Amino acid sequence: MSGSIVKPSILPGFMELVPSEQILFNQMMDTIRKNYEKFGFLPIDTPVIEKSEVLLAKGGGETEKQVYRFEKGSTDMSLRFDLTVPLARYVSQHYSELNFPFRRYHIGKVYRGERNQRGRFREFYQCDIDIIGNGSLDIVNDAEIPAVIYSTFKDLGFDSFTIKINNRKLLKGFFGSLGIEDGTITLRIIDKLEKIGIENVKKELREQNISEQNIEKILEFISIKGTNKEIITSLKELGVENQIFNEGLVELETVTKYISIFGVAEENYNIDLTIARGLDYYTGTVYETFLDEHPEIGSICSGGRYDDLATYYTKQKLPGVGISIGLTRLFYQLREANIISFKEESLCKVLIIPMKGYMEKAIEIGNVLRKVDIYTQIYLESGKIGKKFNYGDKLNVPYAIVVGEEEVKNNSYSLRNMETGEQENLSIEEIANLLKNK
Amino acid sequence: MSGSIVKPSILPGFMELVPSEQILFNQMMDTIRKNYEKFGFLPIDTPVIEKSEVLLAKGGGETEKQVYRFEKGSTDMSLRFDLTVPLARYVSQHYSELNFPFRRYHIGKVYRGERNQRGRFREFYQCDIDIIGNGSLDIVNDAEIPAVIYSTFKDLGFDSFTIKINNRKLLKGFFGSLGIEDGTITLRIIDKLEKIGIENVKKELREQNISEQNIEKILEFISIKGTNKEIITSLKELGVENQIFNEGLVELETVTKYISIFGVAEENYNIDLTIARGLDYYTGTVYETFLDEHPEIGSICSGGRYDDLATYYTKQKLPGVGISIGLTRLFYQLREANIISFKEESLCKVLIIPMKGYMEKAIEIGNVLRKVDIYTQIYLESGKIGKKFNYGDKLNVPYAIVVGEEEVKNNSYSLRNMETGEQENLSIEEIANLLKNK
Repeated sequence: MSGSIVKPSILPGFMELVPSEQILFNQMMDTIRKNYEKFGFLPIDTPVIEKSEVLLAKGGGETEKQVYRFEKGSTDMSLRFDLTVPLARYVSQHYSELNFPFRRYHIGKVYRGERNQRGRFREFYQCDIDIIGNGSLDIVNDAEIPAVIYSTFKDLGFDSFTIKINNRKLLKGFFGSLGIEDGTITLRIIDKLEKIGIENVKKELREQNISEQNIEKILEFISIKGTNKEIITSLKELGVENQIFNEGLVELETVTKYISIFGVAEENYNIDLTIARGLDYYTGTVYETFLDEHPEIGSICSGGRYDDLATYYTKQKLPGVGISIGLTRLFYQLREANIISFKEESLCKVLIIPMKGYMEKAIEIGNVLRKVDIYTQIYLESGKIGKKFNYGDKLNVPYAIVVGEEEVKNNSYSLRNMETGEQENLSIEEIANLLKNK
Repeated sequence: MSGSIVKPSILPGFMELVPSEQILFNQMMDTIRKNYEKFGFLPIDTPVIEKSEVLLAKGGGETEKQVYRFEKGSTDMSLRFDLTVPLARYVSQHYSELNFPFRRYHIGKVYRGERNQRGRFREFYQCDIDIIGNGSLDIVNDAEIPAVIYSTFKDLGFDSFTIKINNRKLLKGFFGSLGIEDGTITLRIIDKLEKIGIENVKKELREQNISEQNIEKILEFISIKGTNKEIITSLKELGVENQIFNEGLVELETVTKYISIFGVAEENYNIDLTIARGLDYYTGTVYETFLDEHPEIGSICSGGRYDDLATYYTKQKLPGVGISIGLTRLFYQLREANIISFKEESLCKVLIIPMKGYMEKAIEIGNVLRKVDIYTQIYLESGKIGKKFNYGDKLNVPYAIVVGEEEVKNNSYSLRNMETGEQENLSIEEIANLLKNK
């Protein structure tokens, strides 16, 4: 035992923060949670480990290779890789206990054994909301989701961000009107536009045996720009005769109209016909959110509408709409781009520093302050006063109170502003009042 | 795909709640977190998956058999089984970045492949606090920990609970004074008193070749009862001549003195010489907490002082003191004993119910209420009014507002108390003011 020391370290691809960073991370998580709750989303919490048979019911694809899957005893189990599959399982399993439309939020860790790469995490927080209908779900829900995104990112302190909105029916219907049967493949190619560039998109479309004429029409279509109203007008003027297209157009028009009524500022959302979302299960409205000044970060919040959440678990038809914020990645990116700083205050408002022999009084003062909800730490170790103040400095605590002979005798304690160094002599009651209002 | 349905279910030993229960669970977790923060504990969050080599550095024992351990690629990894080993690793790894005494709280899930049994969970939340000194840590810290327990359980709504306190040095020193060399085994036997009864304790002590005379003395010792002062006096009167015993006595006397100064009510803590705590690493003060009216639940919060946190990871001496609340098990037990009920309100204060054609106005009212931080849900589906109120009932939302022609025309909305059925006609501003103050 003694002498044999294991080097303390964690696995690559896992994020671990020091407390000053963790405080900020938690504040972001609390802000997201608060906004989700404010719009009537209810919390759920599902097991991180599930039966492989259930979690991987859909099977196949890139995801399955990344899953942490193992056996214990004779049980084949896996760690969840997103919060959507657990939601599908949850809603199917608890169907009779839930109140539909079921609005749930879920903030939790998910696991993906991704290739080791900067900014890619194998354990990361997702913060999801979804609204699940029982059989049907009104299109107005698709307009409320951007209102939640808007409220959340405003509250997180962002001003210049754009929620980009599209409707997959528009693309699918448009492709259909050109005689392209499998719209899904075309959608996926379009979705890669940002990543691979226009020439590669053309190349891939050609590989699908799409005619040059149609390729031109597709590229013309997705380059329709303008204000939301202008884009809607342009789409109408195209005169596409395809039922799916027209459904998509009505939906998009309704959604953008209601987004404004929900109070989302015009500069914070925009129809963008290139937004397709890679995932197969989206069937209508789709969203991606970008920081205007940091497009390199990519989408910070995405989601969309799907026809049926849980085909693998139930015959109930459960249409839904939702979004996800990948908080771990977002936090990492914001830190890398120096958008957030870590001169964070400690959670405590004040550090009480007792002089030798005045521990009891210090504790009593701590009791008084905590009773009125002032977060208070007492420095409980013995030592020189310089060391104690130094501790407070490192803690970034905004205030310190010294408790010694003079202070107790006069019931007058110096409250020191740890940033400016200013001191005021006050009674405990005055200190409590002052700190309560800060 | 279609037709082949997997039965939605989770693994045995995992807790999953419906939203009304989850709200209550989260409220308990928030209360614990708030109290931890109020005393100056800082948050950390460590990976659920760690290197097996690091996590299992100590090796051996019952725990290792329960660990979820697996390989991915060529990496041997394990899920954490407590928050103490990750803390030891964290403090060793981030040693130079931390401010000592380091006070951290950690609320997170841990994993143990326990035998399947009612009330035993394989995934459960632990809510831990620890104070880690760099080289030394004042005994006053041992008195602050019960103050945190006290404040937390009071805030959780419990009144009759007892924090039982002991000091392992007392037991170890007393055994030493009787000539019993390996006090640890004796400690473990004593620790089982509650579980196996006095006769079995005697039997096990005999198996350790402890003389009948010494067994009598040990049983006499642990049956010392009384107020805290009386017990301290009795211990002094024993006149045990053993250095460790006397160290323990001074520590216990100091700790109980300061616990009172920290404001813990006399009826909520008590010296109990039978409390030994099974775990080897405790070296001084130990705590267990019981609900007076539900002793069958067992200890709801335990912990203690240890000489050295991280011998496996660093040569730095890191003494500490801490406790843990096993929230999942606690919640389960409280629910089983009907101590908590689930007639919980929704997180939303109000459900807005638009009549046909009044969706826009309903959304606008929602915006106004949310702006003043009133959690508000709008019923966005079409349908009859009865169905909409029924939804609000199931949601347990305290208030509903109906928005229709009459209401909009008169700017007077009926605010319905969903529990009493009472209605008031008010303007939106009046409603906002009224709900803000509820």
